Amino acid sequence: MISGKSFIGGEWVEGLGSDFTSFDPSTKTKIKDYKGVDVAQINKALESASKAFSIYKCVGFDERATFLDDIANEIEALGTELLEVCNKETGLGIGRLTGERARTCNQLRAFSELVRDGSWQEASIDTSIPDRSPNPKPDIRSVLRPIGPIAVFSASNFPLAFSTLGGDTASALAAGNSVVIKGHPSHPGTSELCARAIEKAILKNKLPSGLFNLLQGASPSTSNDLVMHPKLSAVGFTGSTHVGRILYNLGSSRPIPIPVYAEMGSSNPVFILPKSLEKEEASLSEDLAASITLGNGQFCTKPGLVFIIKSKKTDIFLEKLVACIGNMPSGVFLNSGIDSSFNQKINSYKQKNELTELTKPSKNNGSLFRICAKDFIKKPQFEEEVFGPAALIIACDDFKEMMEAANTLSGHLTGTIHTNGDSEADPLKVVLEDKVGRIIYNGYPTGVEVCPSMHHGGPYPSSTFSSSTSVGTAAIKRFCKVVCYQSAPQNQLPEALKNENPRGITRLLNGIHTINKLV
Amino acid sequence: MISGKSFIGGEWVEGLGSDFTSFDPSTKTKIKDYKGVDVAQINKALESASKAFSIYKCVGFDERATFLDDIANEIEALGTELLEVCNKETGLGIGRLTGERARTCNQLRAFSELVRDGSWQEASIDTSIPDRSPNPKPDIRSVLRPIGPIAVFSASNFPLAFSTLGGDTASALAAGNSVVIKGHPSHPGTSELCARAIEKAILKNKLPSGLFNLLQGASPSTSNDLVMHPKLSAVGFTGSTHVGRILYNLGSSRPIPIPVYAEMGSSNPVFILPKSLEKEEASLSEDLAASITLGNGQFCTKPGLVFIIKSKKTDIFLEKLVACIGNMPSGVFLNSGIDSSFNQKINSYKQKNELTELTKPSKNNGSLFRICAKDFIKKPQFEEEVFGPAALIIACDDFKEMMEAANTLSGHLTGTIHTNGDSEADPLKVVLEDKVGRIIYNGYPTGVEVCPSMHHGGPYPSSTFSSSTSVGTAAIKRFCKVVCYQSAPQNQLPEALKNENPRGITRLLNGIHTINKLV
Repeated sequence: MISGKSFIGGEWVEGLGSDFTSFDPSTKTKIKDYKGVDVAQINKALESASKAFSIYKCVGFDERATFLDDIANEIEALGTELLEVCNKETGLGIGRLTGERARTCNQLRAFSELVRDGSWQEASIDTSIPDRSPNPKPDIRSVLRPIGPIAVFSASNFPLAFSTLGGDTASALAAGNSVVIKGHPSHPGTSELCARAIEKAILKNKLPSGLFNLLQGASPSTSNDLVMHPKLSAVGFTGSTHVGRILYNLGSSRPIPIPVYAEMGSSNPVFILPKSLEKEEASLSEDLAASITLGNGQFCTKPGLVFIIKSKKTDIFLEKLVACIGNMPSGVFLNSGIDSSFNQKINSYKQKNELTELTKPSKNNGSLFRICAKDFIKKPQFEEEVFGPAALIIACDDFKEMMEAANTLSGHLTGTIHTNGDSEADPLKVVLEDKVGRIIYNGYPTGVEVCPSMHHGGPYPSSTFSSSTSVGTAAIKRFCKVVCYQSAPQNQLPEALKNENPRGITRLLNGIHTINKLV
Repeated sequence: MISGKSFIGGEWVEGLGSDFTSFDPSTKTKIKDYKGVDVAQINKALESASKAFSIYKCVGFDERATFLDDIANEIEALGTELLEVCNKETGLGIGRLTGERARTCNQLRAFSELVRDGSWQEASIDTSIPDRSPNPKPDIRSVLRPIGPIAVFSASNFPLAFSTLGGDTASALAAGNSVVIKGHPSHPGTSELCARAIEKAILKNKLPSGLFNLLQGASPSTSNDLVMHPKLSAVGFTGSTHVGRILYNLGSSRPIPIPVYAEMGSSNPVFILPKSLEKEEASLSEDLAASITLGNGQFCTKPGLVFIIKSKKTDIFLEKLVACIGNMPSGVFLNSGIDSSFNQKINSYKQKNELTELTKPSKNNGSLFRICAKDFIKKPQFEEEVFGPAALIIACDDFKEMMEAANTLSGHLTGTIHTNGDSEADPLKVVLEDKVGRIIYNGYPTGVEVCPSMHHGGPYPSSTFSSSTSVGTAAIKRFCKVVCYQSAPQNQLPEALKNENPRGITRLLNGIHTINKLV
């Protein structure tokens, strides 16, 4: 049963701040009233996380990896209760949530494997040259180290994989940091269950009680007090550009500024080059419709802008796309706020002179609008993300105009090119390398693979740091800093930098990658 | 001969903004009047740098490396003129500047070697698994890419190695970016000569004219207009905490925020543990005095705080240290601003009840003050950097009090431990890992080696990003972002990600480091 409490310093406590309520978005009925935390409870969480950090950062890699595995096991041990509570709070459906739970556990296990392997630490050793002229060269070694307590702001659209025990929490813990979660008020019961899973893993591994904290709350002051706390070292956030920028500004304005890694969504432009229509128009319209409406369009990577070049073939493709969207079942919005802002946006689109609605106005399973490229280039507001099952077709006279439109784009998480694979895509690729974090060929941006090469981030406003990813094992680096050791005795060095290389990790040795020991 | 002009878009132009004057700091006499740039000239530099970026980012690695080598060659070809102009503007001495020129050229050549090698790009490939259940795994590859025009703010204290053609410029160009320099008004002639060297290298390699721009100026509005320019992608800065924070705030407040990598100096605490005094007191006092007064104490890594534990041995060590500092020749300040703020600070120290002056007040070759640890812990202002030849001895009753003082420290570039190598240093090391970027054992923080493992940065306020270094080849990463390619045909991939691995670089292949091709 859900207690409605927050988890602070190893204890479940009643919130002393403002009230909020969770709802079933499918029926729009109330599930439960909650009490959010107050500022004293936030302070307690950070004090506790700070103490826990000083212990946890010294915990060995094998112990850290076992802890991550245990969290995954405990999530699975929650069984159907987790799926049912989560489905009631989000309306995402048991099928999707079963898949998302698997992804969440796989993610934790991918990080445990990474931690056990150890090569992620970017260990680098430059050996001394005592007789170098004019000055001796000292022994210099460096390695990634954890940075301190991390605040993670849960996302509404991934209640498992990007929430309480999602990607940012997994990477923060893997790197050796403690975590304070700002739970999403749309799914507080799900957050509580996930926190109970981690509580068990902490107890089982005899780790410090403040290593993980869950703050329930819906008040902006909770977010503000959390980000401004002097003991906080970094923030991970997934959500809207509006809120992401507020948190980024807070983090940058602190007496000691901290990075706020905000992943703020994007419109994920798709470019359909003429030759791709010759080849595969049937599956393209079907698959693109599925990607636009997947999870009711509530994905950070939903393709929201589709650039086409006018032609007979294109007209046929668009007709099919409209038909496919018309055949999609209608979905549930994650909460009433998302529901109403989507509908407001669609209603405002219906009033715009520049836009033509292609889908049937009576259906509510997905909306497709069309704009000519000239108008799109003139009106930057049409580039903004519409969170929900909608996309805008940008009709270009020719490839030159498509390139012109591509050049006006701001930053997005992804850019997709449908092409027959010859050099027709070259100029677009060169532009997209400056505009997006991931370029997809002949595919769809939804479905973000969790793997070492994944980059889920992109130039602003899609994220605040285009060098950092929130998905994939490379995400461990966002919560690390570098520490360098000069002329250190062996007993003073972290494991990764010791001569004997006990874990057999890949290191830079005088600039060359090797797993060799030093003799 | 020095023209006094700025270099914008490949042309030498007279500044249209405010006047400033360069001085000989040894004689305090005027060298030359300059005209700084106006906002239109800043805009022109950024337009030009942006155009050049779009060309330069596609230039091959061998061409990029040759260009960096040519810059080093052209600096050397400037001969003694560069050393003489620079010495007149900085008073640093021909010997020191000869060494610094070598370091500057070595730095450029280290980056050219890095670029040619190619393994720095963090190339990562995850191969597809088309028959994976429930979803096929796509082919995902990622690599570091350049980000766009970079503004580099030159440092006064390294007119060659951290100025117009210094570390930030070398790493920005190596990564594939264009550069706009805000020249330091203390050594505009040196900047002009360095810009002429790079102009020659640009012409020789037929690179775009806007690839490198030098803006002369001393007005804060020049810095402001430069950082706020919409076409700028990042900033490298070396200087005071005050100015660094202003620039960081500007970068974070932009409509599209950009990282401002500010290296803002530090007090570089040194901890002298009792056993080290038993072993090597003679060389310790001599070498520490040399480190405090090196370059007239105008190093970012000057040891400004020396923590000792009271004892007879310590008294003898301090007497020797005072004597050694007394024997140092008196130095020249880089400019009148640094000179007067150092003297103001020392005069204010003389008035403080908590401080005792250990060096002879009449001498001006270096100042040593003493404070008891209890007062130091109470008064955070004594932790602040004093830029010039001065240090503060913090006298602790015992190791416990030393640890207490260490725990109160904020972020610094370095921390030094003098120890006999057994476990007595363990608790200090654990604290310093959270407080500094580089931990030095039984050495001195001045003298920053340029190598792959070097980390010159640290927690705030020593720098704005504790994960980024401004010295060493790892600095190339600060001016890069990640781009990921999903299911890309071979002809769409950058060289580093192609199956055949043409440069034979080390890549992550399904999470494992290897130089293998894909077959």
